[in-house]
Amino acid sequence: MRVVVVGAGLAGLSAARDLQRAGVELVVVEARDRVGGRLEGGTIEGRPVELGGTWLGEGHTRMYALVEELGLETFRTWNDEGKLLIQLGTKRALVSGTKGAVPRLNPVALADLAQGMARFGRLARSVDPAQPWAHPRAERLDGQTFESWVRRTLRTPSGRAYFRVATEAVFAADASDLSLLHALFYAVSNADLETLLAVDRGAQQDRVVGGSVLVAERMAADLDVRLSTPVTTVAQDDSGASVVTRSGETIAADRVVVALPPTLAGRLHYDPVLPAWRDQLTQRVPAGTVAKTFAAYPTPFWRDAGLNGQAASDTGPVKVTFDVSPPDGSVGILLGFVEGGEARRWQRLPEGERRRAVLDSFVRYFGPQAAESSAYVEKDWSAEEFTRGCYGAHFAPGVWTSYGPALRPPVGRVHWAGAEYAVQWNGYMEGAVRSGATTAREVLEADG
Amino acid sequence: MRVVVVGAGLAGLSAARDLQRAGVELVVVEARDRVGGRLEGGTIEGRPVELGGTWLGEGHTRMYALVEELGLETFRTWNDEGKLLIQLGTKRALVSGTKGAVPRLNPVALADLAQGMARFGRLARSVDPAQPWAHPRAERLDGQTFESWVRRTLRTPSGRAYFRVATEAVFAADASDLSLLHALFYAVSNADLETLLAVDRGAQQDRVVGGSVLVAERMAADLDVRLSTPVTTVAQDDSGASVVTRSGETIAADRVVVALPPTLAGRLHYDPVLPAWRDQLTQRVPAGTVAKTFAAYPTPFWRDAGLNGQAASDTGPVKVTFDVSPPDGSVGILLGFVEGGEARRWQRLPEGERRRAVLDSFVRYFGPQAAESSAYVEKDWSAEEFTRGCYGAHFAPGVWTSYGPALRPPVGRVHWAGAEYAVQWNGYMEGAVRSGATTAREVLEADG
Repeated sequence: MRVVVVGAGLAGLSAARDLQRAGVELVVVEARDRVGGRLEGGTIEGRPVELGGTWLGEGHTRMYALVEELGLETFRTWNDEGKLLIQLGTKRALVSGTKGAVPRLNPVALADLAQGMARFGRLARSVDPAQPWAHPRAERLDGQTFESWVRRTLRTPSGRAYFRVATEAVFAADASDLSLLHALFYAVSNADLETLLAVDRGAQQDRVVGGSVLVAERMAADLDVRLSTPVTTVAQDDSGASVVTRSGETIAADRVVVALPPTLAGRLHYDPVLPAWRDQLTQRVPAGTVAKTFAAYPTPFWRDAGLNGQAASDTGPVKVTFDVSPPDGSVGILLGFVEGGEARRWQRLPEGERRRAVLDSFVRYFGPQAAESSAYVEKDWSAEEFTRGCYGAHFAPGVWTSYGPALRPPVGRVHWAGAEYAVQWNGYMEGAVRSGATTAREVLEADG
Repeated sequence: MRVVVVGAGLAGLSAARDLQRAGVELVVVEARDRVGGRLEGGTIEGRPVELGGTWLGEGHTRMYALVEELGLETFRTWNDEGKLLIQLGTKRALVSGTKGAVPRLNPVALADLAQGMARFGRLARSVDPAQPWAHPRAERLDGQTFESWVRRTLRTPSGRAYFRVATEAVFAADASDLSLLHALFYAVSNADLETLLAVDRGAQQDRVVGGSVLVAERMAADLDVRLSTPVTTVAQDDSGASVVTRSGETIAADRVVVALPPTLAGRLHYDPVLPAWRDQLTQRVPAGTVAKTFAAYPTPFWRDAGLNGQAASDTGPVKVTFDVSPPDGSVGILLGFVEGGEARRWQRLPEGERRRAVLDSFVRYFGPQAAESSAYVEKDWSAEEFTRGCYGAHFAPGVWTSYGPALRPPVGRVHWAGAEYAVQWNGYMEGAVRSGATTAREVLEADG
């Protein structure tokens, strides 16, 4: 059997490796001049930083195994010393960086937040991540925005603000953009909301020494990957399949794995055209909006002030920060996320204003020293032709119930893979790798 | 000046005619082997029917003028004799076909519906269709689904059912799919919800003798339209613009008008790539889901039973019907709409089951005679590669406020036109024609 994999992100590479190991003749075609997709290596002050996907966390067993298999190592996200800063409206609180990171606000707000988290958790556990549309109250849960649920369930401004910031941090989208059912699905797919938000024992626990992109690069080492080869057409008939590249080359195969986010998969030309249901799905699962911004300093000065470099705030453009200094602390590097609606406004500013707005946020969290950065780097993933938004896709109201069952099944000889297709750890590197493995099995079984 | 218009639907043709009249050198490139886009002529029992856009209505002044200018004529939709049938749950009511078509249900349901209609109307009038995002409470209105509003505002099952059926009939989508702000925008763009639903003095008032597609065909007569020419790439630089066709031909121009729905415009390759904000917009305005179905009978037998052939029901797959018999009544033709979630299920049935399900609906409304059709025709617009859904695009929650201002402005030398871009009569033939005219002016001014 011969298979063409479209896209050399983690899902495509994972599917390709498994297929090649099973004896399949394999080609990976990649639009960019590099592998990794939403993983990309960058540097600031000569130190490696992840411009895209970064963390491994609790339960990401395949990724930890892969890192080890590829001769790589992980290290802990800076979290041990200093406190997390929470700033909601005029309220400012410092909390220990423990799992869940529920801030110490006034007792009323705290009680409100606690009941909200508990209710969300109970509701999420009732959703089957393999088929969210099968929930007995799926239509009701999918018929409203997550924002509607937040307004109805949380009673205090701080409680609502916390949920909204958490939404932006987790989805790179606003609570208004998401179906409640999608928020629940995503939480249960990733254990729970507390895990999604946490560092230790959570989704931001570890990083790869040298940068996460090394995982993709080493996975690609033994594969036939054709870079700078955007695909325009995916064709199939009774006897086989093929892809046509932008330069007009046709690559024949028995099956094709399209390892692209749904919104990009929907932009390819299919011959014959995709069934209506599957095509309309791709019109309805947009990518989130996020830019990663980095500022470097001579030292991680915030640590001296008892802060761990993590902030969460309801005031942008940067509402969430992390300390991504190198393990030896030889320089200080702050990572700031600009997400959802904030990103859509910020990305239209001139470069100088973008930088100033980011540093202003850092100053608000970590004091005037944060203005004195020695270097600044930013990466807006929605500006990338071959990604068009991160971290991943989200489902607006009505989409899971109307189109969810169309997400994963192959269309004839065309199969799908990507972090968006994962049942477990959806949206994460772990989900991408698992989806690739699942799709590889699917391809082998279809051929058998 | 030389302009390429991509798409020979009403908007593209309207822009092209205005530009050509202003002395612009003009080429229209059309993917299909016919003009008209979402207008298409069909026949059943030898009589013309509209497989796509059909009606002219109150306020559609440009369309009436265009019909006259092109030597065509209109005739009234069958509405004068007989009653409209409303079937909600087990309740069945016959009402005169008057504007608004509020059914005579029990007094409690009727009062509920009346207050719901009044509240919706008041709220809609507060929205500026040129800039829905500028509403003082835009984020609140855009942060919830229309379904959430219906559940909160309507208290009776019949009241809710009526709003949901009306939503499907107007948007070819479910109330869960839509932002409340979008529902309000669309209503005010089209006068009001009553006008959208009405026949006489409403949006379904008149038809074009011979079929609406004749408007497009006659508009195209004096234009250089290249059929069967799908465009893959739109390029621009400081000195000009060009489009590249699927067969590899490059057509140079000073400016390009992309007269496609946003979701299809987003599938083209742009060089340079579209700004992030504009690209992400195209990921977020999916097309609705609708199939038109027709059954022919020896006579319009329902008229003898005192019915006008119009039904509205909360039970599918066909929930809305019209009498589209020829003006002379020489045969009877029923039109049934399969919309939103109903369409997404129905379209996956085998052909025979689809037909049977449609006829079953007709029998439910018009009696056993409806089973004895002499011919059956159906058209699923979401299955069409070069449309991918009708009637038009809808905005999910959060999209108008986050991306609305990115909808209409040109990107350099690339301009947009289509029913989705219209301020007035958005989604209708009238809106398409107006949008084309607006874009033609924009192109001429940009060149001046």
